[in-house]
Amino acid sequence: MKQWNLLSSIEQQQLLARPAQAQSASLQQQVAAIIDAVAQNGDAAVLQYTQQFDCESLRKLRYSAEEIAEQAAKLEPSVRAAIDKAYSTIAAFHQAQKPKDITVETAPGVVCTQRFAPLDAVGLYIPGGTAVLPSTALMLGVPAQIANNPRRVLVSPPDKNGELSPALMYVAQKCGITEVYRCGGAQAIAALALGTESIAPVAKIYGPGNSYVTAAKQQVAQLPGGPAIDMPAGPSELLVIADDSANPSFVAADLLSQAEHGVDSQVILLSPSAKLLQATAEAIEQQLAILPRAATARQALASSALIQTRDLAEAFAISQRYAPEHLSLQFDKADEAVEQVNLAGSVFIGHFTPESGGDYATGTNHVLPTYGFARNYSSLGLLDFYRRFTTQQVSKAGLSELADAIITLAETEGLRAHARAVSIRLEEGS
Amino acid sequence: MKQWNLLSSIEQQQLLARPAQAQSASLQQQVAAIIDAVAQNGDAAVLQYTQQFDCESLRKLRYSAEEIAEQAAKLEPSVRAAIDKAYSTIAAFHQAQKPKDITVETAPGVVCTQRFAPLDAVGLYIPGGTAVLPSTALMLGVPAQIANNPRRVLVSPPDKNGELSPALMYVAQKCGITEVYRCGGAQAIAALALGTESIAPVAKIYGPGNSYVTAAKQQVAQLPGGPAIDMPAGPSELLVIADDSANPSFVAADLLSQAEHGVDSQVILLSPSAKLLQATAEAIEQQLAILPRAATARQALASSALIQTRDLAEAFAISQRYAPEHLSLQFDKADEAVEQVNLAGSVFIGHFTPESGGDYATGTNHVLPTYGFARNYSSLGLLDFYRRFTTQQVSKAGLSELADAIITLAETEGLRAHARAVSIRLEEGS
Repeated sequence: MKQWNLLSSIEQQQLLARPAQAQSASLQQQVAAIIDAVAQNGDAAVLQYTQQFDCESLRKLRYSAEEIAEQAAKLEPSVRAAIDKAYSTIAAFHQAQKPKDITVETAPGVVCTQRFAPLDAVGLYIPGGTAVLPSTALMLGVPAQIANNPRRVLVSPPDKNGELSPALMYVAQKCGITEVYRCGGAQAIAALALGTESIAPVAKIYGPGNSYVTAAKQQVAQLPGGPAIDMPAGPSELLVIADDSANPSFVAADLLSQAEHGVDSQVILLSPSAKLLQATAEAIEQQLAILPRAATARQALASSALIQTRDLAEAFAISQRYAPEHLSLQFDKADEAVEQVNLAGSVFIGHFTPESGGDYATGTNHVLPTYGFARNYSSLGLLDFYRRFTTQQVSKAGLSELADAIITLAETEGLRAHARAVSIRLEEGS
Repeated sequence: MKQWNLLSSIEQQQLLARPAQAQSASLQQQVAAIIDAVAQNGDAAVLQYTQQFDCESLRKLRYSAEEIAEQAAKLEPSVRAAIDKAYSTIAAFHQAQKPKDITVETAPGVVCTQRFAPLDAVGLYIPGGTAVLPSTALMLGVPAQIANNPRRVLVSPPDKNGELSPALMYVAQKCGITEVYRCGGAQAIAALALGTESIAPVAKIYGPGNSYVTAAKQQVAQLPGGPAIDMPAGPSELLVIADDSANPSFVAADLLSQAEHGVDSQVILLSPSAKLLQATAEAIEQQLAILPRAATARQALASSALIQTRDLAEAFAISQRYAPEHLSLQFDKADEAVEQVNLAGSVFIGHFTPESGGDYATGTNHVLPTYGFARNYSSLGLLDFYRRFTTQQVSKAGLSELADAIITLAETEGLRAHARAVSIRLEEGS
């Protein structure tokens, strides 16, 4: 436990530093080689890497509609009910985000419209291997379904038997995803970006992944005409601000739920209350004792911090500086503080709003900017599945109205033909 | 003049190919060295490069408020009036794009909100040197003013006398931009991204630039915690679809206004009418004769194409495949065709809507995805000056409602602490 105002500014900086991310040149080169192989050999390369990394006996990348239905049907009813519930809240929240075209007559006879069109084809990457992540499939599949992107393509690495989990296939079915391919890693990203014989390229790639997936997304986004990507990736993190009104068991449970994600997860507790900090530290120890992933959580906690602040205002300022992915506010009337702590991916307000609620079922999207990127990037939302473009229609009278401005500015910028395109219309136009 | 359906698919592909972009390893290395120098030496490095490339005698990067006002006051009244007019239409169109927070009760006792907050600090890059581009300053400065980003930072390379143009400074003043720095190129992008003694870092960088600027934007966006950027860059382009109802002089003037931008600009005319294609080709030659930038336009035209299509429908299909930055529809009832040709940055509808109108004064933004990126990226708009984030507030009853779903999904994903953060609240919570 540290007291913020007793730290030097360098110590403060170190305390809030993110764990360094592996970005080795060798990893970048391996990924570049995989992308190159997929560019050269298409499906054969994707299949070969998938056999090498995931399932030796795999022969076919794509699941047919029947195979999706067959896998989905194996799902336990309790998990199905849980997915149905999460689907309903996520759908409700994202449905409300539907954009509307905006038309303005900016001058008499000059009508401008901002239009929204769903992206033609979206690629949804779901990590796999040992873990099964139906929640991520919901977070990507539900908005794609609501945006009604004509092609919705799900890729995920198969298990050792060459299968994707029933939970994942149930989500795919529910979200109307008909293109499902059994491949993951950099090879799946390359296939989505460049296209192969069986996988047509997509306009944008979404979803989290390991360091290979992350590097591949970055690399393909740099290609001329390459796909857009959702946001930069980083390890998960939680910052909790709490005072004496908080329940230390709840705070500890939230910190641990973030810490169990991975050894590079970061959790920070800020509180003006020494008593709460002490009690939370004790509760963490107690709860760790019964946690299956205690070893992972312990390692993550080692690079994390419990910090005593002068007051809540100082905690707010630290949070704004850190810009956490998840921000939990566990003090009374927390809803009144949101404007002061808006640099976050998602904010969990009050004592009964656990961070894990947002991971699964409150309805918000759990694909969020981390690693300080909450300063620069948005939380994933329905708008990310659309393109915005504009149209304008000008009448002859409207063009007369604008003519002086266009011609003068074009001449100022030395672009005579730009001016001429206006004057010729007013001279000749009938 | 080519007839589309007589071409082989390889010839069709070549006809629509974009000019290759210089992305040499040596340019990338030069840019990396400049970014590194700015990281090491801050203002001194920025000043040194600016002296080297722009103005030997420059001693101070920042313009004071008085200096901005002084420069702005030198502006000719006619240009001032033109800027005022353009400002009014651009402001009207972007003001209408103001986002609203969205709140949904996704389940009883579960309230989720999508919130919009202006980015804290935005960096607006305006190319300079010999050209003067007040229009680009308007396209970036007006939305930043409407979004009310707390820090709005304009950078632009100074002329040989170390000054920015009166037109640019008038726009800065009008858009309430108080931070103006005289620097351009990769060194300006590095300063905006990393910060120096006098320039604090920004969250996102906007605006067009030469190949150094483009490479620098790409590189800084890859840094851990680096700024976001508006969109990938590429040379400007125009695709016109016209039929016999079009005026060949207007079509020619529009094609030339795009071709004069630069030798790598691309212009394409698609028409089912051989007569219009022929007449347009003749009008281009006539108009070239009186064009100051005819040499540039001629070079651009060399890699451009006039293509005869079977009908308008075939032209629409080609346009969708090409995904132009600017799309001009010069046929009767063009407004009814927009849904069929939506893969474009901005669409110019009808005979009296010249493309140059959108460059300056219809009100739409002229920062647009080019090089086929209209498939993946949005036209610049007010939303690009905000971050979206979410909040959620759950009551105890709301948590009971979601508990089964969260706990079941967490257990499915092997994350016991996630489940525990819910169950502990329902067991202990009072």
